[in-house]
Amino acid sequence: MNRRYRLRRRPESSRVEADFELVEEPIPEVGPGQALVRTLWLSIDPSNRIWLSEVDYGLPPVPVGSVMRGLGIGQVVESQREDMSAGDLVSGPTGWADYTLADDQVNVLPFSVVTSPVNAPLTALLGPLGHTGITAYLGVHDIGKPQPGETMVISAAAGAVGSVAGQIGKARGARVVGIAGSFQKCRYVVDELGFDACINYKDPHWRAHLEQATPDGIDVDFENVGGQIMEQVVDRLNVGGRVVLCGLMSEYTTLGSSRLQHGVDVAQIMIKRAHIGSFLVLDNADRFPEAIEYLSGLIEDGKLTYDETVIDGLERAPEALNQMFAGSNTGKLLIKVAERCV
Amino acid sequence: MNRRYRLRRRPESSRVEADFELVEEPIPEVGPGQALVRTLWLSIDPSNRIWLSEVDYGLPPVPVGSVMRGLGIGQVVESQREDMSAGDLVSGPTGWADYTLADDQVNVLPFSVVTSPVNAPLTALLGPLGHTGITAYLGVHDIGKPQPGETMVISAAAGAVGSVAGQIGKARGARVVGIAGSFQKCRYVVDELGFDACINYKDPHWRAHLEQATPDGIDVDFENVGGQIMEQVVDRLNVGGRVVLCGLMSEYTTLGSSRLQHGVDVAQIMIKRAHIGSFLVLDNADRFPEAIEYLSGLIEDGKLTYDETVIDGLERAPEALNQMFAGSNTGKLLIKVAERCV
Repeated sequence: MNRRYRLRRRPESSRVEADFELVEEPIPEVGPGQALVRTLWLSIDPSNRIWLSEVDYGLPPVPVGSVMRGLGIGQVVESQREDMSAGDLVSGPTGWADYTLADDQVNVLPFSVVTSPVNAPLTALLGPLGHTGITAYLGVHDIGKPQPGETMVISAAAGAVGSVAGQIGKARGARVVGIAGSFQKCRYVVDELGFDACINYKDPHWRAHLEQATPDGIDVDFENVGGQIMEQVVDRLNVGGRVVLCGLMSEYTTLGSSRLQHGVDVAQIMIKRAHIGSFLVLDNADRFPEAIEYLSGLIEDGKLTYDETVIDGLERAPEALNQMFAGSNTGKLLIKVAERCV
Repeated sequence: MNRRYRLRRRPESSRVEADFELVEEPIPEVGPGQALVRTLWLSIDPSNRIWLSEVDYGLPPVPVGSVMRGLGIGQVVESQREDMSAGDLVSGPTGWADYTLADDQVNVLPFSVVTSPVNAPLTALLGPLGHTGITAYLGVHDIGKPQPGETMVISAAAGAVGSVAGQIGKARGARVVGIAGSFQKCRYVVDELGFDACINYKDPHWRAHLEQATPDGIDVDFENVGGQIMEQVVDRLNVGGRVVLCGLMSEYTTLGSSRLQHGVDVAQIMIKRAHIGSFLVLDNADRFPEAIEYLSGLIEDGKLTYDETVIDGLERAPEALNQMFAGSNTGKLLIKVAERCV
């Protein structure tokens, strides 16, 4: 049988478990132009939470009643597609399901065959060498553009995107300061990832600590969180500063059904002749090869390390999404759904 | 004698007359490296209001007790500078005064000799061919980048910068929609400036009118006003939209002493993969020749018309600044201080 999580209703509170229903349905039949994919790994991302709302963020909202959308790595079980054979590893919108059909006529995003990276585990294709790492690359290179001697601040610094973004900033020669939600995460960010400093925003004196850690002000804000954290960072932006508006995690869990709302002091942006730029990795498929080449190079040079938090079992996907917003993961958050067959 | 407006105190209300003092002081002696400049025309700009606060917006705040800063056109009376002779026309920081010393060691901005433009009156050097027009040029070309078929919306459309920005948008092939504060201004914007539509934001149905005038959404917001107007325009931004953060006039008159504060829904910016860019014309002196060449070309081709509101007499400068924020001017607001001698 095929376990799948269907969306029962749009979330109205910060916890989402009750908004999903785990159903057991028959494994679908493979038709012409289709392949049956067994999910191996499922990526849990902040954007999953946006997909649950009525906001169109590059992809339409997940319809109520349908299987929850999710990016993953799978293995082809049976194929009637010319580009895929049984046993192939593929990445794409596996969804929160044991099995899904790879069908470019139906899927909102394409599946594609992948090979295991030479210098990293398979799961890196969802992390530093996948949409997560590419997001960090595009934000830093296209919008943030930290220069040697400049200061870049990264919120959710121990998270999947933030940890990569900061290391790219270091590779570019910037002073890199993280913001994270615990002392332990901050230690990880400084000791393992090599950031110059990290601020625990749950410390009552975090604003003073941020000021001390950024004596020359802030040139780049790689923003993943929003809210008071963003406000404080924007307040310390230098003239000509750049805000990479990558995410606003602090907003998503209180998300109304139809739109996000978060105010930022745009007058500060004007006075500082600053820029705010946003982007969506899925809009930039043409840039993926360039990004992956750069990120692979960093890994080879020992300049990009990464961590994963693995949760076992598809049935724990809703719980994992909650945990992500509660800040319990370090690095990439993954659900292990099944073993790869070799 | 030399009439000069000195800043008595920083404004705390929307009216500023009582915050200035008109003093009569001796005409200064000219020393080495200096020239004495008689002010002919004085430019009244929204940024004057920022200079009265404690905010550093490219230039330090005007110190309490000192002569009010202002950009103007003057004529050299006497010179001990090699680059200036008596009778020369100059542009620079004349200030709110009959006479000032052009002295690059002291002035916050340089004075430079100008020649009357061939295709426009002298005052155009403060308007479409001066810092006003260059502001519009930089905002449209560097940040807004409206493309043929796209829709650009401009607030304070009948104002000095907005009127030029919209005509540049038209010259680039965009659909251009203005927002202004009266029916009469809207008629001017459409009939004289050639915008495709103009919305009177004092009409109770202006939001619906804006929606009707932008059936394909908004690709570029050339923002001069902020507040509810900006909020509404940002709400209609298309994916990939650009906000040219040129000014936030609705904020300046309620300006606290130390900073501006205005919230914009940055989540809308993220969801739409939009950009907000700001800039200051004074930071871009190296771009002035390019901008002036472009703007002169538009005037020659009959694609750039402009209007002036002239107020007679230096003594009316504070009143003029108030009037600008009350929305009484169309086009460039100028104080005529003295006649040019020929």
